[in-house]
Formats: sequence, C-alpha cells, structure tokens
Amino acid sequence: MSIDRLLERVRAQSPLVHHITNWVTISDCAQIAKTLGASPVMAHAADEVAEMAALASAVVLNIGTLTGRTVASMKQAARAARRKPIPVVLDVCGAGATALRNRMTADLLETGAISIIKGNASEIAAVAGAQATTKGVDSGTVTGDLEALARDLARAQKACVVVTGAVDIVTDGARLLHVGNGHPMMAAVVGTGCMAATVIGTFAAVESDPVEAACAGLAVYEIAAEIAAEGAKGPMAFKAALFDTLYGLDGDTVAARAKVTS
Amino acid sequence: MSIDRLLERVRAQSPLVHHITNWVTISDCAQIAKTLGASPVMAHAADEVAEMAALASAVVLNIGTLTGRTVASMKQAARAARRKPIPVVLDVCGAGATALRNRMTADLLETGAISIIKGNASEIAAVAGAQATTKGVDSGTVTGDLEALARDLARAQKACVVVTGAVDIVTDGARLLHVGNGHPMMAAVVGTGCMAATVIGTFAAVESDPVEAACAGLAVYEIAAEIAAEGAKGPMAFKAALFDTLYGLDGDTVAARAKVTS
Amino acid sequence: MSIDRLLERVRAQSPLVHHITNWVTISDCAQIAKTLGASPVMAHAADEVAEMAALASAVVLNIGTLTGRTVASMKQAARAARRKPIPVVLDVCGAGATALRNRMTADLLETGAISIIKGNASEIAAVAGAQATTKGVDSGTVTGDLEALARDLARAQKACVVVTGAVDIVTDGARLLHVGNGHPMMAAVVGTGCMAATVIGTFAAVESDPVEAACAGLAVYEIAAEIAAEGAKGPMAFKAALFDTLYGLDGDTVAARAKVTS
Repeated sequence: MSIDRLLERVRAQSPLVHHITNWVTISDCAQIAKTLGASPVMAHAADEVAEMAALASAVVLNIGTLTGRTVASMKQAARAARRKPIPVVLDVCGAGATALRNRMTADLLETGAISIIKGNASEIAAVAGAQATTKGVDSGTVTGDLEALARDLARAQKACVVVTGAVDIVTDGARLLHVGNGHPMMAAVVGTGCMAATVIGTFAAVESDPVEAACAGLAVYEIAAEIAAEGAKGPMAFKAALFDTLYGLDGDTVAARAKVTS
Repeated sequence: MSIDRLLERVRAQSPLVHHITNWVTISDCAQIAKTLGASPVMAHAADEVAEMAALASAVVLNIGTLTGRTVASMKQAARAARRKPIPVVLDVCGAGATALRNRMTADLLETGAISIIKGNASEIAAVAGAQATTKGVDSGTVTGDLEALARDLARAQKACVVVTGAVDIVTDGARLLHVGNGHPMMAAVVGTGCMAATVIGTFAAVESDPVEAACAGLAVYEIAAEIAAEGAKGPMAFKAALFDTLYGLDGDTVAARAKVTS
Repeated sequence: MSIDRLLERVRAQSPLVHHITNWVTISDCAQIAKTLGASPVMAHAADEVAEMAALASAVVLNIGTLTGRTVASMKQAARAARRKPIPVVLDVCGAGATALRNRMTADLLETGAISIIKGNASEIAAVAGAQATTKGVDSGTVTGDLEALARDLARAQKACVVVTGAVDIVTDGARLLHVGNGHPMMAAVVGTGCMAATVIGTFAAVESDPVEAACAGLAVYEIAAEIAAEGAKGPMAFKAALFDTLYGLDGDTVAARAKVTS
C-alpha cells in the first residue's frame, strides 16, 4: 500500500496506541500520536497494562527511564499484545549504556512479543551484541557493517529492526529498505527518537506488514521534519513546526517527497 | 461573583494548588496554573502529601497514569484536604477503560473529600455506572441522558460534577449550568482536559461555591482557547497561543465572551 | 576562563550530564542541556544510576518530586560521582515546604558528594536552617542577610552555593559573586529554576572551579532569557525563544552582556 494511503488510514481509523514509555518524552509521544490522528494512552500500572494493551491496536515500549517495575509492566503488556495479537514496538533507548538496560532489553525480547525493535546505530549494535559505544541515549560509535548487524538481529529475533540515522535502515531479515527523509535539526530536539517509535507503532496499528508500516511512518514523520526545518530559527521553532506540519500534511506531498528505497 | 472578578482574585491571591497528577501532562498543568497567576506544586510522595495538601488552597488529583502507590498518596492528600478543609478536584481521566481505574476512582470517592468530579462524557458515565465505552483517555460513546447522569452522580456523591465537551455541564445536583465556550482545536492537543481540572481547582481555591468556581474557570480557559485558535496553523501554535492568551486575558474580554447559561 | 570560552568548550566537548530530577520539568532540563550542546541522560533506577553517573561528566539532582526511592538512587549516583570524581549539583527544589524535603536534603548533603547547592532564597534559607517560608516550589520570604546565610552554608558544606533571584548569588564561602543577568519573565515559566541547575551542571562538567562554572552558566542562560523576552507576548513565546536564542547564542554577545561582579 502507498504511504499516503496508510496515513489516510491512520487518520480514518484513529487507532488506540498504548505506551509504556519514559518520563522525559511521554508528553511528546502522546502528542505526536494524536497529531497523526491516533488516540494515545499512556498507562504503566502492573494491575492494568494487560487490560489496556488488549484494548489497543498497538503497543509502544521505551526503556529510556526504565526501572525493574516498569519493565515488569512492559512484559505483561507485551504478552497481552501477543495473545491478541497486536504489534509491539520496542524502543531500545539507551541500550548499551548500562548492564541493566542490556539485561532488561534481553528480558523483553524473550517474551517473543516484540514485532519491531527500534534504536539508533549504537543502541541496535549493543542489542545485537556487537562492538559499540552508547553515550547515554545519544548515538555513539559503531564498528562494523550496520546493515548486516540489523539483518542478523532481525533474523535472530524474528522481528523487524529499525535503525534510525541520517538514512534509516528497516529490515525483517529478508527485505532491507532505506528511508532517506529527515533533517539534521531532529538531533537538536529531545524526543525525536522516541516519537519515531510512536509513529512506527501508530502505522503498525493499521498495517500488518511491519516493514511497510515502519517505512511509511518514518517517511511521513521525516517529511514533516524536512518542511518544519525550512526557516526554523532553533530547536523549539522546529519542534512546534514539526507537529503543526504533520497535522496538516497532505497525501500528495507525502507521495512526492517520500524516499523509501531498497 | 462575576467571572472576571474571580480571575482577578486568582491573580491577586496566587493560591498554592497541590497536584498529584499523571506523568504525561504534569508540566502543562503546572504551567497553566502559573499562567493563571497561581502557584502550582506537584508532589506525590506518601511521606509528604498530607503536609503539602495542608499548605495548599486546593488539591487536584488525576488518575491518568495511576498506580496503587500514587492512589494511596491521593487518598492521604484528599483526607488532609478534607480536614482543613480545602476543595479537591478529581479528574477521572480514563475511567471506564480498565477495572483498576474504576476501583481506584471508587476508592477516592469513598474518602468523602472530593468536591468536584471532572471528566468527559464517557468517563463520567463510567463513574456513574452507566453504559459507556471509554477509548483510552479520549471520550467514547455514551447512551442515555448525560445531564441526568451527571445530576444523579452529583447527588449520590454530594459533589459538583463537571462533564467537559463541546458544551460543558456543571451541576451540584440542584443547579445545572452549561459553559458554551471553547474550540474544537482543544481536542487536538494532549493535556487540554487535564489542564481544565487544574483551572477548576485554581478557581475553587479562591471561590467556595464549586459550581461557580468550575463555570468561571472553564469559561476563562475556553475563552483563551477561542482566541488562541484564531489563525493557529496547528496544535502546537494553538497550544502556545492558549497559554499566552490566558496570560494576558483581560476582564472585559472575559465578561463579554463568557457563555455560562442554565 | 572567560564565559564565552566556557560556552565554546561545552559545545566542543558535548559532556554527558546525568540527571535524577523531577517529573515536571524533566523534558525541559534535557532540552536545555541539549540546546547548550551537551548530551543529557535521565535515569533513576537504583540498579543503574551508579553506572550511568560513572559514565557522565556531571550529575544533576533535583528533589522537586522526590520520593524515598528516588532519593536513594540520588545518593548512589552522588557516591559514584564522588568516586570518579565529577561535580554534583543539588537543586533543593521546594526545600522548607515539608519535613520530608528537609530530611532528604540533609541526607543528600551528608554524602559529602554535593559540589554545588542551588535554590531560590527561601529554599537556601531553609537548607541553612534560617527563618524562611517556602511556598511550594516558589520563593517565599526570608528574614536576615541572604549573602551571609549563603556564605555560611557554603563553608559548612564545603560546597558552592547558588541563590537564584533577580541578582543571583554564587559563593564558595571565600569568594562571593553576583550574576545580574536575567528577566522577570523567567518567573512566569515553570522549569526555569530547574533548567538553571542543569545549565550549572553542564558548565561544571567542563570547568573544575564550581564558582566560575556556576557564574558562567547562569550568565549565558540569563542573557538568552533577556534576548528572548524582547517582544515575547507571553510565557510560551518567551520559553520557545529562550531555547532558540540559547541555541544560536554567539560568544561576542555573551562577552558583551555578561554581568558577573563581586
């Protein structure tokens, strides 16, 4: 299905997207989902996450400010999502920075419920067990062939893997696609990575092929970023314009600007 | 007392408004209280909420990202508020979506300390025990007479009930008023519902009649939204203008535009 | 070292600044660090804070929405920072408002790891044990000589003390400096105080003299605020301009406008 048609479908279906995410960008993630036309809900209590996930059309998990408690809730939500089944996006925010993040990421992957693993280059490399240096939640350095790493991780986890960067990589182990949209100003704004996971989850809520959903979501989001960056004086003007551009983005612009290639 | 005079009183008294709220819109709620001229404080540790509530002129509770732990703190704050006594607003955010939310809402109401119950149509219907479908934290469908539901809930709980929507309903079981201000763009911004609870709590801090406080607060807030929506290109431009308009809103504009009717 | 050179150094080194902070302004603190050119990371799980702090070049702690659990994590991070050693900024947000805050502040100071204690007048007075009334997290009234209080506290704690206000006070007990930059509009925006602590921590990450780091950070931040306030219609326009001005702030402007005096 074409990208602009998928955006139309998000707006028409307004899927409920359940998040268990970090405390830094939780508001931004809710707002980007709403701006796309979806209905975000953020809920992390162990006593309700399975029920909330079961009501949703997709689940988005993010370990940015994880604790043992939130990860326990994430596992419950992931299992409820698998039973339904609905897609689960895992943003491996800060993976590689600490032993806890690595262990918790492994725990979450072991549920077998993760449909899409998303991170920047050093985070994905860390999850794949490769040589990488993660600097907090910002991307560090990665040695080796990132595409091969991503492809191998996808095969090992039977999941779609998304590596964000100047050119994003999206692979399910068989197919490997690139999304060439976006703007360097995104790196100057806290939350653009987390919001990318929300966008992917929102598209996955209406499109069962995770590779197609991830590529479409990233292209739409990053086209809005390109337009928002025109004339933005700084990160906050850019951020506001990112939301407002996405809100009014029309299908023709999406179709004309999308750079999704093999 | 007239609405513009109440706004003036908020600005002159700068009441301390204690919140135990959700992690999504906590910053927005603090900022809307400050923008009105109040002094917001957010504190949820069980060991200090009673003390903080006792320092305050109103308490605002919101179950949007509740856990058993935060609800326990909410009950302590509510009881401290009742002893003082100061008004307590309960935003039943997402009520009806999960069993936990329904049970916790009932627990909070049982404290007997809640002065004002605020929600959208499906949330209030869920609290009232009526047929309703809540979609996460967005309003779902409600069958039946919403005004009768609200009135009955107000009588049963001996509280003021506020149902937000295109036209808001405010009732204490005897009186029933409508606030006709506002703008559809409010639904495109995450946090407008939570901020409405903060605004109501802020006005209740300076006006002992909860019906009058709720109507005045909603009218002021929604007049700012109407003005902010003029020429706003998208949700973020609208949101920024909502705060900036409220900050500079003068009494004459409030008096001229308020639509509070029986 | 001159202030503009220190700003240059922050941008060149992009230090990792680890925060354990409150849920209200966590996003703002991350964004202001990133806008300065640093790499913020927010992490509070007891199982990873020591490891994260050890990766960082500075730690910023803020008790705005403290719980026993977050303070326990703060103590671990502080001890890891002392071992490295890297500077630790403690924002005593709301100190004086409740017994819990006072007790937890004392606990954190007892670690001996706090390099810089930062608060508004009534918070610092409360920490110093003086007569003061704190109104939630906003500054209340203080009786007595604030400079003497700050100096004595600095000596007693062997730390740099920063008292924010119309004119900020920075002292290590021996030296006492004033920073006269800033704008009243800062008081209309939630988070400006917390962001000041982040800015101080970011400069302390690249400058070992805490007095020099604090003065430079405050001057840079408050010069951006002065420029942002020109023509801002309200708190949100001001806040957005604060970030965007800081993002593009050049060394000549900093050198020309800085008001750091003894």
